[in-house]
Amino acid sequence: MFAGEDEVLQGDLKLRYAKVQALMRECALDALLVSTNLNNLYLSGRIFSGFTYLRVEGDPLFFVTRPVGLCGSNVYLIRKPEQIPEMLMELGKRMPECAGLEAGAVSHSSWMRLSALFPGADLKDCTALLSAARAVKTPYEIVLMKKTGSRHAAVISQFPSVYEGGMTDQEWMIEMVGLMLKAGSLGIFRVAGESMEAFMGTVLAGDNGGAVSPYDFAMGGAGMHPSYPVGQCGIKLERGMAVMADIAANFYGYLTDCSRIFSIGRLPQRALDAHRLSMDIHSAITEKGVPRASCEELYQLALGMAVAAGFDDCFMGGAQKSRFVGHGTGLVINEQPVLGMRSKSVLEQGMCIALEPKFYIAGVGAVGAEDTYLVGDKGLSCITQSSQEIVEL
Amino acid sequence: MFAGEDEVLQGDLKLRYAKVQALMRECALDALLVSTNLNNLYLSGRIFSGFTYLRVEGDPLFFVTRPVGLCGSNVYLIRKPEQIPEMLMELGKRMPECAGLEAGAVSHSSWMRLSALFPGADLKDCTALLSAARAVKTPYEIVLMKKTGSRHAAVISQFPSVYEGGMTDQEWMIEMVGLMLKAGSLGIFRVAGESMEAFMGTVLAGDNGGAVSPYDFAMGGAGMHPSYPVGQCGIKLERGMAVMADIAANFYGYLTDCSRIFSIGRLPQRALDAHRLSMDIHSAITEKGVPRASCEELYQLALGMAVAAGFDDCFMGGAQKSRFVGHGTGLVINEQPVLGMRSKSVLEQGMCIALEPKFYIAGVGAVGAEDTYLVGDKGLSCITQSSQEIVEL
Repeated sequence: MFAGEDEVLQGDLKLRYAKVQALMRECALDALLVSTNLNNLYLSGRIFSGFTYLRVEGDPLFFVTRPVGLCGSNVYLIRKPEQIPEMLMELGKRMPECAGLEAGAVSHSSWMRLSALFPGADLKDCTALLSAARAVKTPYEIVLMKKTGSRHAAVISQFPSVYEGGMTDQEWMIEMVGLMLKAGSLGIFRVAGESMEAFMGTVLAGDNGGAVSPYDFAMGGAGMHPSYPVGQCGIKLERGMAVMADIAANFYGYLTDCSRIFSIGRLPQRALDAHRLSMDIHSAITEKGVPRASCEELYQLALGMAVAAGFDDCFMGGAQKSRFVGHGTGLVINEQPVLGMRSKSVLEQGMCIALEPKFYIAGVGAVGAEDTYLVGDKGLSCITQSSQEIVEL
Repeated sequence: MFAGEDEVLQGDLKLRYAKVQALMRECALDALLVSTNLNNLYLSGRIFSGFTYLRVEGDPLFFVTRPVGLCGSNVYLIRKPEQIPEMLMELGKRMPECAGLEAGAVSHSSWMRLSALFPGADLKDCTALLSAARAVKTPYEIVLMKKTGSRHAAVISQFPSVYEGGMTDQEWMIEMVGLMLKAGSLGIFRVAGESMEAFMGTVLAGDNGGAVSPYDFAMGGAGMHPSYPVGQCGIKLERGMAVMADIAANFYGYLTDCSRIFSIGRLPQRALDAHRLSMDIHSAITEKGVPRASCEELYQLALGMAVAAGFDDCFMGGAQKSRFVGHGTGLVINEQPVLGMRSKSVLEQGMCIALEPKFYIAGVGAVGAEDTYLVGDKGLSCITQSSQEIVEL
């Protein structure tokens, strides 16, 4: 535990350790050596450079390379990971026989270096185990998610106040980003995996809502430049366009995801119908999204509603469709589980799910609402609560 | 080559291939299979999801998983990397005997999956080879770096126009970010390695200039929250404070690095002297920074000047000092080489170097200028040209 942490966080970390340790027992892991920012943050409540060493019982040891001055119980400053085995011995800790390393997240070079710390040990990938732990929020994490969601919704309600006729999508996006930062969002956008990246979010206006992107976001957008091909593309906002504002919030290290649609004047009926259908899908999944609900079935429920209403051609994209309708969120925007095709996951109480049934209407733009929900015993409860209706400008 | 690329980029990519291929010959590599956003961008001029396969001779093949619709010569849409070997065979390409994969950048899991594509081949890490290639810019890259640097400097000159008395460091930072985005910066901040991250940059006011951070930036700052502990910390800007504004620019996928110091009223003489010394170090290194200059010797030159002037205690930080005075920049903010302790690198013509001799003066803040330079045959020429003097507010 780092010095100076408040008691609430301290107590909550104990719950996280217990959860991770239960998963470790299932995989017969003696210990984890964690080195990514993301999982160090999860296991300590702060970003530091170094390693969290968690045995299947007891509190973790923190081996810190940076910053100097970070101290606390079980905190040891080191220069390099090769010091860890001797320090474990000095502390009278047995070396693990089966150790977990983040194979899915650290580089192959780092894996080779870290695996040499435990000669003879059986090494396993603990990336999925830690994702599974992170997916189900602890009580304090739920407090932070709810506070973030509430602040997120409040910022979105201000977006129309910074709209001016004749703006481009990019100009409005810059104003939205300003509001989000002024409200206290940290700006930094974290995403798991090796190829996703984003600058806070996207604003998709008109046909750019159907533009394809290399990134696996629900709606892509062409972006401003081939070196960052996602999101707004610099077009002028014009009558009849739908504008999807999808700017993430990160006030305490936890991300909520929420999109709203603004229209320049009134949209054609088909776009309004698609948006209404999105709201209906939210209602349906909200009700069915109880603990143990199948994530694939929830996706199929959404897809089925889209098909039944004659909107399957534009559900979750145009030329390139996403095969999911929702995803976990938390320390990263793409936590587990995925509500999508071939998902084997089930919902669990305490998961936070961003639900985003979206439609691309050619000639109009992207429509559909996105909100973040908490899985409770009676279904999903929204933590980014505000009207999902299209706001006509 | 992707369809629609302009001729200038096409010609420039050929130069990049030739450079990488020359380095491949030195390592006896037959082929590289690149999968990171960063090196795909370097080798194609755009971000895509998929793989660049470059043999030691000829143009690369692009195996694209996303987006659909990306086409061109040597561009093949695939669903998964396991299709690559059969496609190579269909195209009549010999399988490599010695292949390079990005061991230092892809996850261990990805390495395992990709290495299985080339059974029997000798596999090597090509991360450093690609970094070395990226470090020396091609003519078109130099054009983009210069354009970025010039636009970067123009934005910084506007920072005083959005300052208002009584602001916090964070409030001013938000205004600076707004100016940078309005000028066309893409916002996205790319950094190589496994633990660095940043949201566009930092603003360090007063004693926060000496606060330690887990990240290996020259000056850290405490940040607003333990989940992102770097940069501005929310303090009110007050008389006698130095404020270091260090916001990166990225207009075309290439990052330039430039910091300027603003003071609230006049700073104490020791801070002014340290800043003057920073400018003198810039001049000295500018002159000595010719091709084949030792990067460690350039660092020692800076350190020696700091020691001689009695500023060694506050050179490159307070409680936690950085052991470098400059670094490459380009597609990532931390390209090779490092002008630091134990660096074995030498400068080469075409490198772009951010030089940042900085000092932390307790009770005042961080001072010292940062500029990005191009290595030419007569030394360094500045591409973020503007006055390095402290701007008194």
